[in-house]
Amino acid sequence: MNEIRKKILIIGGLGFIGKNLYLSLVQDGHAVTMLTHTMRDEGDGFVTPEVKEHILSGSILDKAFLEEALASYDVIFSLAGSSGAADSIKDPYHDLDTNLKGHLNILEACKKINPKVLLIFPSTRLVYGKPDTETVSEQHPLRPESIYAIHKITTEQYYLMYYHLYGIRSIIYRVANPYGPYQRFGSNHYGILNWFIHKAIHREKIELYGDGSQVRDFIHIQDVIKLFKISMDNERIVGRIFNVGSGKGTSLIQAAKAISTCVPETNIVLKAWPEIDQKIETGDYISDITLVNNETGWQPLINIEDGIRETIAFYQRKVT
Amino acid sequence: MNEIRKKILIIGGLGFIGKNLYLSLVQDGHAVTMLTHTMRDEGDGFVTPEVKEHILSGSILDKAFLEEALASYDVIFSLAGSSGAADSIKDPYHDLDTNLKGHLNILEACKKINPKVLLIFPSTRLVYGKPDTETVSEQHPLRPESIYAIHKITTEQYYLMYYHLYGIRSIIYRVANPYGPYQRFGSNHYGILNWFIHKAIHREKIELYGDGSQVRDFIHIQDVIKLFKISMDNERIVGRIFNVGSGKGTSLIQAAKAISTCVPETNIVLKAWPEIDQKIETGDYISDITLVNNETGWQPLINIEDGIRETIAFYQRKVT
Repeated sequence: MNEIRKKILIIGGLGFIGKNLYLSLVQDGHAVTMLTHTMRDEGDGFVTPEVKEHILSGSILDKAFLEEALASYDVIFSLAGSSGAADSIKDPYHDLDTNLKGHLNILEACKKINPKVLLIFPSTRLVYGKPDTETVSEQHPLRPESIYAIHKITTEQYYLMYYHLYGIRSIIYRVANPYGPYQRFGSNHYGILNWFIHKAIHREKIELYGDGSQVRDFIHIQDVIKLFKISMDNERIVGRIFNVGSGKGTSLIQAAKAISTCVPETNIVLKAWPEIDQKIETGDYISDITLVNNETGWQPLINIEDGIRETIAFYQRKVT
Repeated sequence: MNEIRKKILIIGGLGFIGKNLYLSLVQDGHAVTMLTHTMRDEGDGFVTPEVKEHILSGSILDKAFLEEALASYDVIFSLAGSSGAADSIKDPYHDLDTNLKGHLNILEACKKINPKVLLIFPSTRLVYGKPDTETVSEQHPLRPESIYAIHKITTEQYYLMYYHLYGIRSIIYRVANPYGPYQRFGSNHYGILNWFIHKAIHREKIELYGDGSQVRDFIHIQDVIKLFKISMDNERIVGRIFNVGSGKGTSLIQAAKAISTCVPETNIVLKAWPEIDQKIETGDYISDITLVNNETGWQPLINIEDGIRETIAFYQRKVT
């Protein structure tokens, strides 16, 4: 690699995105630390004794801790926070504390002790709510339908404001539906495709609401990571918001069928819509990724069939 | 009056909007209670012994209190919360607690004990940031430049979400720059025109930044109140956001000169821009009020010269 070795912190490093990001950045020769609140071993073999040495334990709700911990990094990936639209509706206060306060703490600490840092913050396609158009650009109106999505918008605006007022540089990505290795089993919050894969591998039913025709934009985590990495050296995208997705739509039933070609025993079941899920269902979604492609040259390369096959193989190795 | 007498609560009842609203609703024969956290007497003669009987003391941060207090009202004007863009930047956490948590508490309490209520929430034109267009419609992009404005957007979205998910009815008004009687002296947060009037009456300098050519949309509080009142009986505007302003632009120097025709000793001084103020200056702003006019028939009637003259007369009576 030609880029200069960077000192990088991944806040929320032991989550789905964080683990994949860590492995890729280390492979590129960067000095990477992960900051995490919970040191739970998830049985995926990620936390080896060597990796453990790069884990820093602490909470983004602890301001004094952050004012020590965030110094001296070149880049901070700000991945912490609770995720889950449905959970956030049940307990809006918890989401407010972990997401809004946590990110304000990160920004205030950077302003104080590391104002030259570059922050990369993943937001979500859920900020758009029900799309007006077949593909959704960054100009689409924001109509969030959960506390989680509302607070993602608030946090996006925090990052932009700290850039405009104090010059704290950040890049915001509205990520579609990522999938791939290292997502915790049992979590259906964000990674619906991984959840389906887990179900198939564990011989559980894949339940689809309605006729399963809901369209999502699934993107392999490695494509996301590739974009995150080139973002560290692109000053023209600082202080801006970009969609990240495959730019292609796949229905849930198509995704489930693609899984069933790899796991022949897959049991797909159609089910009536539960009321609350129907209310917060955002409708078909496909990212318009023109802007990020124009500004960075990035484009997703992993097609969904290959991505699903490779992801299934990863989780099968972990299960057996 | 022909409308049915309503049971109305004004949360934040002792603020600028609250006091004007109270007097007008009582005059119409409604049963009005004000909820306030601070019982400070502001020397404006508002809190008479009779008015005092209609004041309920408590905090919107006290959930248990709200779950008692908010029962049985037909309409709640949700005016509480700290105001001030500059202050919110200095202490984002305070704004987060008082504005976001407070309004979540109000919504949660209504959901629990008064789901049939109608809530009216005033937001601010500051949600738009620097306008792209001469007049600003509700479709204009949101580019908030302070924590205060960011949190107003968050709160708007809370109200809309509670309507869509739980049917808690609310109406949101993005208010331009209101002015008129009963604003506390010393507060320049929201009511810049009132602040100028206070300065003139107290023989202090009116300081304008730059050449004073910044355009604002000043609206007399009585015009705002008139809209708030007709909103209580218009089901078609529920669950929606509307601009409220005069629809006309007045520069700060024009406003100051209008004051000086009523208070001849007025001393207007031009001053260089302080850095932080220049950064958060939102640029010229004029509301596009087509939507609210179409949906309600409302239009502002008080022109700025009459409004200023009448407001000065009110404060002069209080000073002397």
